[in-house]
Amino acid sequence: MSTKKIIITDPSLRDGSHACSHQITEEQLLAYAKSADETGIDYIEVGHGNGLGASSLQLGENLIEEKRMLQLARSVIHKSKLSVHVMPGFATIEREIRQAMDIGVDLFRVASHCTEADITMRHINYIRAQGKEVWGILMMTHLATKEVLLEEAQKMQSYGAKAIVLMDSAGAFLPADVESKIGHLSQHLVVPVGFHAHNNMGLSVANSLTAINAGASIVDATACGFGAGAGNTPIELLAAAMFQLKLDSNLDLYKVLETSDLARILFAKNLPFSNSTTVVSGITGIFSGFAKIVERVSKELKVDPKDVFFELGRRKVIGGQEDLILEVASELSKKNN
Amino acid sequence: MSTKKIIITDPSLRDGSHACSHQITEEQLLAYAKSADETGIDYIEVGHGNGLGASSLQLGENLIEEKRMLQLARSVIHKSKLSVHVMPGFATIEREIRQAMDIGVDLFRVASHCTEADITMRHINYIRAQGKEVWGILMMTHLATKEVLLEEAQKMQSYGAKAIVLMDSAGAFLPADVESKIGHLSQHLVVPVGFHAHNNMGLSVANSLTAINAGASIVDATACGFGAGAGNTPIELLAAAMFQLKLDSNLDLYKVLETSDLARILFAKNLPFSNSTTVVSGITGIFSGFAKIVERVSKELKVDPKDVFFELGRRKVIGGQEDLILEVASELSKKNN
Repeated sequence: MSTKKIIITDPSLRDGSHACSHQITEEQLLAYAKSADETGIDYIEVGHGNGLGASSLQLGENLIEEKRMLQLARSVIHKSKLSVHVMPGFATIEREIRQAMDIGVDLFRVASHCTEADITMRHINYIRAQGKEVWGILMMTHLATKEVLLEEAQKMQSYGAKAIVLMDSAGAFLPADVESKIGHLSQHLVVPVGFHAHNNMGLSVANSLTAINAGASIVDATACGFGAGAGNTPIELLAAAMFQLKLDSNLDLYKVLETSDLARILFAKNLPFSNSTTVVSGITGIFSGFAKIVERVSKELKVDPKDVFFELGRRKVIGGQEDLILEVASELSKKNN
Repeated sequence: MSTKKIIITDPSLRDGSHACSHQITEEQLLAYAKSADETGIDYIEVGHGNGLGASSLQLGENLIEEKRMLQLARSVIHKSKLSVHVMPGFATIEREIRQAMDIGVDLFRVASHCTEADITMRHINYIRAQGKEVWGILMMTHLATKEVLLEEAQKMQSYGAKAIVLMDSAGAFLPADVESKIGHLSQHLVVPVGFHAHNNMGLSVANSLTAINAGASIVDATACGFGAGAGNTPIELLAAAMFQLKLDSNLDLYKVLETSDLARILFAKNLPFSNSTTVVSGITGIFSGFAKIVERVSKELKVDPKDVFFELGRRKVIGGQEDLILEVASELSKKNN
């Protein structure tokens, strides 16, 4: 096992936004951020589930305006660093990124689909030129080979990203996938490598440990797994396993446990859980954001939502291609009749 | 990965009894057993959390009398086999075992603490002599070395047990522990080896897969993890991961998912979850049944329940030694003042 210090990033107040349809309240944000700031978590990520500038009618609107979310977080986060998720397209340099810098955000995690690192160049360049910390994030990484992921990560590294994080956005990774992809990037990149899991097959903790063992030195984890779909790696479970394995980090186990107990109360109504939809979206590699539409369309057309997911998986459908859900469900409905 | 067929045992209606203080209703039992019987699960285990004859004031009384539980289960289980948990001391040959045989139970899983296989001899001998299937179960197996576990398992094998299952009763195992212990037994026993996980560190699915990889051909798993403490291996997640890994079993993935969705509704009020208590009981290796007493005593004496668990763990306290909880908490309380 690894002897280096593991950096922990906590996107509870960003990925968790998906779990509550972006309705995080001021009270929840302040209470959680204050408590998390005492745990030794290195970075606390805040904002809309899809990052800066993503609050919209189509993706769902934040209950609290973005500027206010970041100001509130900044007012109580002193020991940890404050981080934001940045997807070029939603986040513009002129508006959202400058505003976040003015508020005092410490880290910008600039993200793209796993094969589209090109679109992050301008944003990474700009943030780096302003002297701010910037990482590169590759999403839906079950859809690309380790060789392609390395190429894309190297692009981000060349733009100035100081770390690269692979996201298993659909919760589709088995431990062997993590070992292969994280291992390959860790061997060939200069900058540190991180891993962000989802728990669709109940493997988020094990996959995170596998990532560390394969060379990752950054792990994302959220309180009680508060995040999209089946949720992320529960930080209280990861902290416990890391404690048992004597892995080094800044985490204070007791304080992490107490913060997660608090989160269980704060976010009680919206904590993630598993059901047949989260499982099937995981094993077919479909982003969990599709689940509600698949369930609605399947009910209307009297087809099994599990069959719809399997067909979407075969077509490697990704975010932005939601119109294919109706097409697939209609075809299945015709076949059945 | 393994190419042999993996046998799945489902103790939802036995370990889940702990999760609802033994208040499983007739409606829940019938609805769950009927649905599980269609999934390809090989064995469905039914009864009090501590097995045959354990319903009592001290351990908690079954809502439904044991005889009736088994009769109801027998009336709807046709494709799976019906199994019971047997702990000598609670279960007598003359009363509970004969009664279970009369009702038509197919499999008796005779259990002892990990270093006390001796006490299972009479029961295993008797059941075997009656021509019924009998397995040996070692509990709290984080407390013994692989060499000791092998000796104890070999005793059970010599008495006539047709399989040996290691239980991680406290949810204390890391994957490397599973690999070492299950691997050692699989290499040296003649009979098949099984594994029963608890999810205190969120590792139950990964540990079960590790067990299979290390030679186990029997895995226990329950719907939505319905079981003591942080729960068992969720069968819907295990089935999904086994599907992805192309591991052979009799499970029908769709039917397992549908049965777990049903269980989520049937047992909604009592499904297991993680909190600081389940995490700390896991990493200190204390049986989850202690949690409620530890919490009550800690509150009374104004000590941190986490500290109590760590001290109990240092003393390797096991079931039956509940009086040590008060002793430890009192000592901590004196130290603090």
